Amino acid sequence: MVDILHKIGIKSAMPAVYRALTTIDGLSGWWTTDTTGETGPGDVIRFRFGKGGFDMKLLELDRDSRVVWQVIDGPPEWLDTTITWELRREGDWTRVFFKHQGWREPVDFMHHCSTKWAVFLVSLKALVETGRGTPWPHELKIDSWEE
Amino acid sequence: MVDILHKIGIKSAMPAVYRALTTIDGLSGWWTTDTTGETGPGDVIRFRFGKGGFDMKLLELDRDSRVVWQVIDGPPEWLDTTITWELRREGDWTRVFFKHQGWREPVDFMHHCSTKWAVFLVSLKALVETGRGTPWPHELKIDSWEE
Repeated sequence: MVDILHKIGIKSAMPAVYRALTTIDGLSGWWTTDTTGETGPGDVIRFRFGKGGFDMKLLELDRDSRVVWQVIDGPPEWLDTTITWELRREGDWTRVFFKHQGWREPVDFMHHCSTKWAVFLVSLKALVETGRGTPWPHELKIDSWEE
Repeated sequence: MVDILHKIGIKSAMPAVYRALTTIDGLSGWWTTDTTGETGPGDVIRFRFGKGGFDMKLLELDRDSRVVWQVIDGPPEWLDTTITWELRREGDWTRVFFKHQGWREPVDFMHHCSTKWAVFLVSLKALVETGRGTPWPHELKIDSWEE
């Protein structure tokens, strides 16, 4: 089992965080500006980052608490992995527990994706707290081939 | 096996990255300003973040390629875990492969530490590339209890 795990606290009520994870407008505001698709259960959202990207099938959508995506197209290392978002309300804050599971091997690319997910979680936090995230292509670059 | 894995590319020759990971001056510039101790093989470096912190024993110091720390004091979840830094030169860049291994369970705190390590790796990159990192207490806060 090799998983990417993260957690971030967002000073916000839960519905705003849920919206940022489940609407095209929200997702475009922190992950990639090139986000398209439908957002109901079983639908597919397409996330593009210039040449490449990911297609995510919406496996679970439990309002205000849990969202699960399955990767149905993208780099081979990502295929059939799942991404789970768990939201927990704690006082004035919402904590986001993130799990990207199903990696077959801890390849170099997985190390990169782990760090990059953290960069985008910080962008998600900024979007919800301030109204302004840094989605691709404006996000922080962490390696040569991204520049 | 539950590991925290990260990778970051730094536009720099390898010795500058190695120095940032193996000297008190370097470590103080990206992780915490409150870093003290000796930096030879088998020595212990103390990293403090206000009330808490970590004591790391230097298990391996292979110049320009690999550094391994063992956590000998700190939060119970961290005790006896190891942190490995592998450096690879690729053209004008140095890639840092980071592994925090030996976690017994994927506890909530592990999720937090994974995200926080990414924040500090971005600080390490900034220190080496620009001369200015954001060590504690100046680093990006990602949860309520850090503010």
